[in-house]
Amino acid sequence: MALELYWGSGSPFAWRVMLMLELKGLAYQSTLLEFSKGDHKAARFLKLNPRGKVPVLKDDDFVLNESLAIMAYLDKKYAEPPMFGTSPQEAGLIWRAMMETEAYLLNFGDKVIRPVFFGKGLDETEKIQEAAEAVRQELKRIDRELSGSTWLVGKQISAADISLFPLVQTVLRAAGKDAAKPLKLELLPLADSFPNVSTWVKRIEALPGYERTYPPHWR
Amino acid sequence: MALELYWGSGSPFAWRVMLMLELKGLAYQSTLLEFSKGDHKAARFLKLNPRGKVPVLKDDDFVLNESLAIMAYLDKKYAEPPMFGTSPQEAGLIWRAMMETEAYLLNFGDKVIRPVFFGKGLDETEKIQEAAEAVRQELKRIDRELSGSTWLVGKQISAADISLFPLVQTVLRAAGKDAAKPLKLELLPLADSFPNVSTWVKRIEALPGYERTYPPHWR
Repeated sequence: MALELYWGSGSPFAWRVMLMLELKGLAYQSTLLEFSKGDHKAARFLKLNPRGKVPVLKDDDFVLNESLAIMAYLDKKYAEPPMFGTSPQEAGLIWRAMMETEAYLLNFGDKVIRPVFFGKGLDETEKIQEAAEAVRQELKRIDRELSGSTWLVGKQISAADISLFPLVQTVLRAAGKDAAKPLKLELLPLADSFPNVSTWVKRIEALPGYERTYPPHWR
Repeated sequence: MALELYWGSGSPFAWRVMLMLELKGLAYQSTLLEFSKGDHKAARFLKLNPRGKVPVLKDDDFVLNESLAIMAYLDKKYAEPPMFGTSPQEAGLIWRAMMETEAYLLNFGDKVIRPVFFGKGLDETEKIQEAAEAVRQELKRIDRELSGSTWLVGKQISAADISLFPLVQTVLRAAGKDAAKPLKLELLPLADSFPNVSTWVKRIEALPGYERTYPPHWR
Protein backbone atom coordinates (compact mmCIF):
# COMPACT_ATOMS: atom_id res chain seq x y z
CA MET A 1 0.00 0.00 0.00
CA ALA A 2 1.31 3.43 -0.97
CA LEU A 3 1.66 6.50 1.17
CA GLU A 4 -1.43 8.63 0.76
CA LEU A 5 -1.51 12.38 1.25
CA TYR A 6 -4.68 14.41 1.73
CA TRP A 7 -4.00 18.03 0.89
CA GLY A 8 -5.51 21.27 -0.36
CA SER A 9 -4.17 23.66 -2.99
CA GLY A 10 -2.49 26.64 -1.33
CA SER A 11 -2.30 25.15 2.19
CA PRO A 12 1.24 25.99 3.34
CA PHE A 13 1.00 23.15 5.84
CA ALA A 14 0.25 20.55 3.17
CA TRP A 15 2.97 22.07 0.99
CA ARG A 16 5.54 21.35 3.71
CA VAL A 17 4.72 17.66 3.63
CA MET A 18 4.77 17.52 -0.18
CA LEU A 19 8.26 19.04 -0.19
CA MET A 20 9.33 16.53 2.44
CA LEU A 21 8.01 13.63 0.37
CA GLU A 22 9.82 14.90 -2.75
CA LEU A 23 13.11 15.40 -0.90
CA LYS A 24 12.88 11.92 0.57
CA GLY A 25 12.14 10.57 -2.90
CA LEU A 26 8.96 8.91 -1.69
CA ALA A 27 6.18 8.05 -4.11
CA TYR A 28 2.72 8.81 -2.80
CA GLN A 29 -0.89 8.77 -3.76
CA SER A 30 -2.34 12.27 -3.80
CA THR A 31 -5.86 13.15 -2.72
CA LEU A 32 -6.64 16.80 -3.39
CA LEU A 33 -9.47 18.15 -1.25
CA GLU A 34 -11.48 21.08 -2.57
CA PHE A 35 -12.00 23.50 0.29
CA SER A 36 -14.66 25.36 -1.71
CA LYS A 37 -16.71 22.16 -1.92
CA GLY A 38 -16.24 21.48 1.79
CA ASP A 39 -14.33 18.23 1.17
CA HIS A 40 -12.37 18.83 4.37
CA LYS A 41 -15.58 18.90 6.43
CA ALA A 42 -17.08 15.78 4.84
CA ALA A 43 -17.68 12.77 7.10
CA ARG A 44 -15.21 10.66 5.14
CA PHE A 45 -12.37 13.07 5.84
CA LEU A 46 -13.40 13.88 9.43
CA LYS A 47 -12.87 10.20 10.19
CA LEU A 48 -9.18 10.72 9.33
CA ASN A 49 -8.90 14.09 11.08
CA PRO A 50 -11.79 15.22 13.29
CA ARG A 51 -10.41 18.79 13.10
CA GLY A 52 -11.10 18.84 9.37
CA LYS A 53 -7.67 20.15 8.46
CA VAL A 54 -5.02 19.22 5.95
CA PRO A 55 -2.51 17.73 5.60
CA VAL A 56 -3.28 14.17 6.64
CA LEU A 57 -0.90 11.35 5.81
CA LYS A 58 -1.95 7.73 5.60
CA ASP A 59 0.78 5.11 5.65
CA ASP A 60 -0.97 1.75 5.49
CA ASP A 61 -3.24 1.83 8.55
CA PHE A 62 -1.37 4.62 10.26
CA VAL A 63 -3.05 8.04 9.98
CA LEU A 64 -1.43 11.30 11.08
CA ASN A 65 -2.27 14.99 11.00
CA GLU A 66 -0.26 18.14 11.93
CA SER A 67 2.36 19.00 9.31
CA LEU A 68 5.40 19.09 11.60
CA ALA A 69 4.43 15.78 13.22
CA ILE A 70 4.11 14.20 9.78
CA MET A 71 7.58 15.50 8.91
CA ALA A 72 9.03 14.02 12.12
CA TYR A 73 7.30 10.70 11.37
CA LEU A 74 8.57 10.54 7.79
CA ASP A 75 12.11 11.34 8.87
CA LYS A 76 12.12 8.60 11.48
CA LYS A 77 10.62 6.02 9.14
CA TYR A 78 12.48 6.96 5.94
CA ALA A 79 15.85 8.06 7.26
CA GLU A 80 17.62 9.22 4.07
CA PRO A 81 18.42 12.00 3.51
CA PRO A 82 18.18 13.16 7.15
CA MET A 83 15.96 16.23 7.41
CA PHE A 84 16.34 16.82 11.16
CA GLY A 85 20.15 16.90 11.20
CA THR A 86 22.45 14.22 12.47
CA SER A 87 23.78 15.63 15.76
CA PRO A 88 21.74 16.65 18.82
CA GLN A 89 22.86 20.24 18.21
CA GLU A 90 21.55 20.25 14.64
CA ALA A 91 18.30 18.62 15.71
CA GLY A 92 17.88 21.27 18.43
CA LEU A 93 18.58 24.17 16.06
CA ILE A 94 16.25 22.78 13.41
CA TRP A 95 13.41 22.38 15.90
CA ARG A 96 14.10 25.86 17.26
CA ALA A 97 13.82 27.33 13.77
CA MET A 98 10.57 25.42 13.24
CA MET A 99 9.10 26.53 16.55
CA GLU A 100 10.06 30.16 15.89
CA THR A 101 8.42 29.90 12.47
CA GLU A 102 5.21 28.76 14.18
CA ALA A 103 5.35 31.26 17.02
CA TYR A 104 6.28 34.34 15.01
CA LEU A 105 6.14 34.14 11.22
CA LEU A 106 2.98 32.04 11.11
CA ASN A 107 1.26 34.03 13.80
CA PHE A 108 1.99 37.47 12.35
CA GLY A 109 1.83 36.30 8.74
CA ASP A 110 -1.68 34.99 9.32
CA LYS A 111 -2.85 38.48 10.29
CA VAL A 112 -1.65 39.77 6.92
CA ILE A 113 -2.65 36.81 4.77
CA ARG A 114 -6.22 36.32 5.96
CA PRO A 115 -7.56 39.83 5.37
CA VAL A 116 -5.96 40.00 1.92
CA PHE A 117 -7.11 36.54 0.77
CA PHE A 118 -10.57 36.55 2.33
CA GLY A 119 -11.37 40.28 2.46
CA LYS A 120 -12.35 40.17 6.15
CA GLY A 121 -10.97 42.94 8.34
CA LEU A 122 -9.23 44.64 5.44
CA ASP A 123 -10.28 48.01 6.88
CA GLU A 124 -8.29 47.40 10.08
CA THR A 125 -5.18 48.72 8.35
CA GLU A 126 -3.36 49.57 11.56
CA LYS A 127 -3.59 45.99 12.82
CA ILE A 128 -2.44 44.64 9.47
CA GLN A 129 0.49 47.05 9.29
CA GLU A 130 1.57 46.13 12.81
CA ALA A 131 1.57 42.46 11.80
CA ALA A 132 3.42 43.30 8.57
CA GLU A 133 6.11 45.11 10.56
CA ALA A 134 6.54 41.98 12.72
CA VAL A 135 6.78 39.85 9.56
CA ARG A 136 9.44 42.21 8.18
CA GLN A 137 11.41 41.91 11.42
CA GLU A 138 11.33 38.12 11.17
CA LEU A 139 12.35 38.17 7.51
CA LYS A 140 15.16 40.58 8.33
CA ARG A 141 16.44 38.20 11.00
CA ILE A 142 16.22 35.26 8.61
CA ASP A 143 17.92 37.32 5.89
CA ARG A 144 20.83 37.95 8.25
CA GLU A 145 21.07 34.26 9.11
CA LEU A 146 21.12 33.35 5.43
CA SER A 147 23.80 35.91 4.60
CA GLY A 148 26.61 33.46 5.37
CA SER A 149 24.92 30.14 4.68
CA THR A 150 22.99 28.28 2.04
CA TRP A 151 20.41 26.75 4.33
CA LEU A 152 18.85 27.79 7.64
CA VAL A 153 20.64 25.19 9.78
CA GLY A 154 23.74 23.19 8.87
CA LYS A 155 25.08 22.46 5.42
CA GLN A 156 22.09 20.62 3.98
CA ILE A 157 18.48 21.53 3.41
CA SER A 158 16.47 20.54 6.46
CA ALA A 159 12.98 20.50 7.90
CA ALA A 160 13.69 24.07 9.05
CA ASP A 161 13.84 25.32 5.45
CA ILE A 162 10.90 23.21 4.35
CA SER A 163 8.57 24.35 7.11
CA LEU A 164 9.39 28.02 6.57
CA PHE A 165 9.31 28.12 2.77
CA PRO A 166 5.57 27.67 2.09
CA LEU A 167 4.73 30.37 4.65
CA VAL A 168 7.14 32.82 3.01
CA GLN A 169 5.60 32.03 -0.38
CA THR A 170 2.10 32.54 0.98
CA VAL A 171 2.92 35.87 2.61
CA LEU A 172 4.54 37.06 -0.63
CA ARG A 173 1.57 35.95 -2.67
CA ALA A 174 -0.73 37.92 -0.37
CA ALA A 175 1.57 40.96 -0.63
CA GLY A 176 1.30 40.86 -4.42
CA LYS A 177 -2.51 40.90 -4.53
CA ASP A 178 -4.39 44.03 -5.58
CA ALA A 179 -6.14 44.12 -2.21
CA ALA A 180 -2.73 44.48 -0.54
CA LYS A 181 -1.61 47.46 -2.62
CA PRO A 182 -3.09 50.18 -0.36
CA LEU A 183 -1.71 48.49 2.78
CA LYS A 184 1.94 49.37 2.16
CA LEU A 185 3.26 46.06 3.41
CA GLU A 186 6.82 46.78 2.20
CA LEU A 187 7.55 43.13 1.49
CA LEU A 188 8.04 43.27 -2.29
CA PRO A 189 10.10 43.09 -4.36
CA LEU A 190 11.71 40.42 -2.23
CA ALA A 191 15.12 40.69 -3.93
CA ASP A 192 15.36 44.33 -2.81
CA SER A 193 14.04 43.99 0.74
CA PHE A 194 15.46 40.60 1.69
CA PRO A 195 18.08 39.58 -0.90
CA ASN A 196 19.31 36.46 0.91
CA VAL A 197 15.79 35.20 1.47
CA SER A 198 15.14 35.81 -2.21
CA THR A 199 18.16 33.68 -3.25
CA TRP A 200 17.11 30.98 -0.79
CA VAL A 201 13.59 30.93 -2.27
CA LYS A 202 15.05 30.47 -5.78
CA ARG A 203 17.28 27.69 -4.46
CA ILE A 204 14.27 25.76 -3.19
CA GLU A 205 12.30 26.44 -6.37
CA ALA A 206 15.15 24.79 -8.30
CA LEU A 207 14.97 21.54 -6.32
CA PRO A 208 14.01 18.41 -8.26
CA GLY A 209 10.34 17.67 -7.73
CA TYR A 210 9.51 21.23 -6.68
CA GLU A 211 7.14 21.77 -9.58
CA ARG A 212 4.99 18.87 -8.41
CA THR A 213 4.41 20.62 -5.08
CA TYR A 214 3.39 24.02 -6.45
CA PRO A 215 -0.25 24.91 -5.60
CA PRO A 216 -2.22 24.21 -8.80
CA HIS A 217 -4.60 27.17 -8.39
CA TRP A 218 -1.63 29.57 -8.10
CA ARG A 219 -0.53 28.93 -11.70
CA MET B 1 30.73 21.88 32.62
CA ALA B 2 27.21 21.27 33.79
CA LEU B 3 23.97 21.83 31.97
CA GLU B 4 22.62 25.26 32.83
CA LEU B 5 18.94 26.20 32.70
CA TYR B 6 17.66 29.77 32.65
CA TRP B 7 14.07 29.81 33.78
CA GLY B 8 11.34 31.85 35.43
CA SER B 9 8.92 30.84 38.17
CA GLY B 10 5.52 30.03 36.68
CA SER B 11 6.65 29.84 33.05
CA PRO B 12 4.95 26.70 31.72
CA PHE B 13 7.59 26.55 28.97
CA ALA B 14 10.48 26.46 31.43
CA TRP B 15 8.54 23.95 33.53
CA ARG B 16 8.46 21.55 30.57
CA VAL B 17 12.24 21.52 30.35
CA MET B 18 12.66 21.09 34.11
CA LEU B 19 10.39 18.02 34.00
CA MET B 20 12.39 16.68 31.06
CA LEU B 21 15.66 17.13 32.95
CA GLU B 22 14.25 15.36 36.02
CA LEU B 23 12.88 12.46 33.99
CA LYS B 24 16.21 12.06 32.21
CA GLY B 25 17.93 12.14 35.59
CA LEU B 26 20.19 14.99 34.47
CA ALA B 27 21.84 17.26 37.02
CA TYR B 28 21.78 20.94 36.04
CA GLN B 29 22.71 24.34 37.29
CA SER B 30 19.62 26.49 37.76
CA THR B 31 19.49 30.22 37.05
CA LEU B 32 16.18 31.71 38.12
CA LEU B 33 15.32 34.96 36.33
CA GLU B 34 13.04 37.41 38.09
CA PHE B 35 10.58 38.71 35.53
CA SER B 36 9.55 41.52 37.89
CA LYS B 37 13.12 42.79 37.94
CA GLY B 38 13.41 42.56 34.15
CA ASP B 39 16.16 39.92 34.31
CA HIS B 40 14.89 38.45 31.04
CA LYS B 41 15.38 41.78 29.25
CA ALA B 42 18.88 42.41 30.63
CA ALA B 43 21.77 42.56 28.16
CA ARG B 44 23.42 39.51 29.70
CA PHE B 45 20.37 37.34 29.03
CA LEU B 46 19.54 38.86 25.62
CA LYS B 47 22.94 37.61 24.46
CA LEU B 48 21.67 34.08 25.10
CA ASN B 49 18.21 34.70 23.67
CA PRO B 50 17.57 37.96 21.81
CA ARG B 51 13.84 37.38 22.22
CA GLY B 52 14.22 37.69 25.98
CA LYS B 53 12.24 34.56 26.73
CA VAL B 54 12.74 31.56 28.95
CA PRO B 55 13.65 28.75 28.96
CA VAL B 56 17.19 28.83 27.64
CA LEU B 57 19.46 25.82 28.01
CA LYS B 58 23.24 26.04 27.95
CA ASP B 59 25.17 22.83 27.45
CA ASP B 60 28.85 23.78 27.42
CA ASP B 61 29.03 26.30 24.56
CA PHE B 62 25.76 25.25 22.99
CA VAL B 63 22.84 27.60 23.72
CA LEU B 64 19.25 26.84 22.81
CA ASN B 65 15.84 28.45 23.31
CA GLU B 66 12.28 27.26 22.55
CA SER B 67 11.04 24.67 25.02
CA LEU B 68 10.08 21.96 22.53
CA ALA B 69 13.39 22.34 20.68
CA ILE B 70 15.26 21.97 23.97
CA MET B 71 13.29 18.80 24.69
CA ALA B 72 14.16 17.39 21.25
CA TYR B 73 17.82 18.25 21.81
CA LEU B 74 17.97 16.66 25.24
CA ASP B 75 16.31 13.50 23.98
CA LYS B 76 18.76 13.13 21.11
CA LYS B 77 21.80 13.80 23.32
CA TYR B 78 20.70 11.90 26.44
CA ALA B 79 18.78 9.02 24.98
CA GLU B 80 17.48 7.22 28.10
CA PRO B 81 14.66 6.99 28.87
CA PRO B 82 13.31 7.83 25.40
CA MET B 83 10.79 10.68 25.60
CA PHE B 84 9.85 10.79 21.91
CA GLY B 85 8.90 7.14 21.59
CA THR B 86 10.89 4.42 19.89
CA SER B 87 8.98 3.76 16.65
CA PRO B 88 8.22 6.26 13.86
CA GLN B 89 4.53 5.91 14.72
CA GLU B 90 5.09 6.82 18.38
CA ALA B 91 7.32 9.75 17.41
CA GLY B 92 4.63 10.97 15.02
CA LEU B 93 1.84 10.69 17.57
CA ILE B 94 3.93 12.40 20.26
CA TRP B 95 4.74 15.32 17.97
CA ARG B 96 1.10 15.51 16.91
CA ALA B 97 0.01 15.78 20.54
CA MET B 98 2.64 18.46 21.12
CA MET B 99 1.64 20.46 18.06
CA GLU B 100 -2.05 20.24 18.98
CA THR B 101 -1.18 21.46 22.48
CA GLU B 102 0.52 24.51 20.92
CA ALA B 103 -2.16 25.18 18.33
CA TYR B 104 -5.19 24.74 20.56
CA LEU B 105 -4.69 24.47 24.31
CA LEU B 106 -1.93 27.07 24.47
CA ASN B 107 -3.67 29.43 22.10
CA PHE B 108 -7.08 29.33 23.82
CA GLY B 109 -5.63 28.90 27.32
CA ASP B 110 -3.61 32.07 26.88
CA LYS B 111 -6.82 34.04 26.32
CA VAL B 112 -8.08 32.84 29.70
CA ILE B 113 -4.80 32.96 31.64
CA ARG B 114 -3.63 36.45 30.68
CA PRO B 115 -6.69 38.47 31.70
CA VAL B 116 -6.94 36.59 35.02
CA PHE B 117 -3.23 36.86 35.92
CA PHE B 118 -2.60 40.37 34.63
CA GLY B 119 -6.03 41.96 34.92
CA LYS B 120 -6.01 43.25 31.33
CA GLY B 121 -9.16 42.71 29.29
CA LEU B 122 -10.99 41.11 32.23
CA ASP B 123 -14.14 43.00 31.18
CA GLU B 124 -14.25 41.25 27.80
CA THR B 125 -16.08 38.36 29.41
CA GLU B 126 -17.59 37.07 26.17
CA LYS B 127 -14.15 36.63 24.59
CA ILE B 128 -12.83 34.90 27.70
CA GLN B 129 -15.82 32.57 27.89
CA GLU B 130 -15.43 31.66 24.23
CA ALA B 131 -11.79 30.76 24.87
CA ALA B 132 -12.77 28.84 28.02
CA GLU B 133 -15.27 26.82 26.00
CA ALA B 134 -12.50 25.93 23.54
CA VAL B 135 -10.25 24.94 26.45
CA ARG B 136 -13.04 22.72 27.84
CA GLN B 137 -13.44 21.06 24.43
CA GLU B 138 -9.72 20.29 24.32
CA LEU B 139 -9.70 18.97 27.89
CA LYS B 140 -12.75 16.84 27.08
CA ARG B 141 -10.93 15.33 24.11
CA ILE B 142 -7.84 14.67 26.22
CA ASP B 143 -10.00 13.21 28.98
CA ARG B 144 -11.46 10.75 26.46
CA GLU B 145 -7.99 9.80 25.25
CA LEU B 146 -6.83 9.20 28.81
CA SER B 147 -9.87 7.07 29.66
CA GLY B 148 -8.18 3.91 28.45
CA SER B 149 -4.53 4.74 28.94
CA THR B 150 -2.08 5.94 31.55
CA TRP B 151 -0.18 8.35 29.32
CA LEU B 152 -1.10 10.41 26.26
CA VAL B 153 0.86 8.31 23.75
CA GLY B 154 2.18 4.78 24.22
CA LYS B 155 2.84 2.96 27.47
CA GLN B 156 5.43 5.36 28.94
CA ILE B 157 5.39 9.00 29.90
CA SER B 158 6.58 11.02 26.92
CA ALA B 159 7.29 14.55 25.74
CA ALA B 160 3.57 14.75 24.90
CA ASP B 161 2.60 14.51 28.59
CA ILE B 162 5.39 16.81 29.70
CA SER B 163 4.60 19.58 27.26
CA LEU B 164 0.89 19.53 28.08
CA PHE B 165 1.09 19.26 31.86
CA PRO B 166 2.43 22.74 32.78
CA LEU B 167 -0.19 24.38 30.57
CA VAL B 168 -2.99 22.43 32.24
CA GLN B 169 -1.62 23.41 35.65
CA THR B 170 -1.43 27.06 34.61
CA VAL B 171 -4.98 27.14 33.26
CA LEU B 172 -6.25 25.51 36.46
CA ARG B 173 -4.35 27.97 38.61
CA ALA B 174 -5.92 30.85 36.68
CA ALA B 175 -9.36 29.25 37.06
CA GLY B 176 -8.92 29.11 40.82
CA LYS B 177 -8.10 32.82 41.24
CA ASP B 178 -10.64 35.24 42.73
CA ALA B 179 -10.58 37.27 39.52
CA ALA B 180 -11.82 34.19 37.64
CA LYS B 181 -14.82 33.54 39.91
CA PRO B 182 -17.30 35.81 38.04
CA LEU B 183 -16.21 34.40 34.66
CA LYS B 184 -17.84 30.98 35.09
CA LEU B 185 -15.02 29.10 33.40
CA GLU B 186 -16.42 25.68 34.42
CA LEU B 187 -13.00 24.12 34.69
CA LEU B 188 -12.96 23.31 38.41
CA PRO B 189 -13.06 21.07 40.30
CA LEU B 190 -11.00 19.14 37.80
CA ALA B 191 -11.90 15.73 39.25
CA ASP B 192 -15.58 16.37 38.49
CA SER B 193 -15.22 17.93 35.03
CA PHE B 194 -12.33 15.91 33.65
CA PRO B 195 -11.73 12.89 35.92
CA ASN B 196 -9.11 11.19 33.73
CA VAL B 197 -7.13 14.40 33.31
CA SER B 198 -7.29 14.80 37.09
CA THR B 199 -5.84 11.32 37.67
CA TRP B 200 -3.16 11.98 35.05
CA VAL B 201 -2.20 15.25 36.79
CA LYS B 202 -1.82 13.38 40.11
CA ARG B 203 0.28 10.73 38.38
CA ILE B 204 2.74 13.37 37.16
CA GLU B 205 2.76 15.12 40.53
CA ALA B 206 3.87 11.81 42.07
CA LEU B 207 6.92 11.46 39.81
CA PRO B 208 10.32 11.53 41.51
CA GLY B 209 11.83 15.00 41.20
CA TYR B 210 8.47 16.66 40.55
CA GLU B 211 8.70 18.81 43.68
CA ARG B 212 11.92 20.39 42.40
CA THR B 213 10.09 21.63 39.28
CA TYR B 214 7.13 23.25 41.07
CA PRO B 215 7.02 27.06 40.59
CA PRO B 216 8.40 28.52 43.83
CA HIS B 217 6.03 31.50 43.91
CA TRP B 218 3.02 29.19 43.63
CA ARG B 219 3.68 27.65 47.06
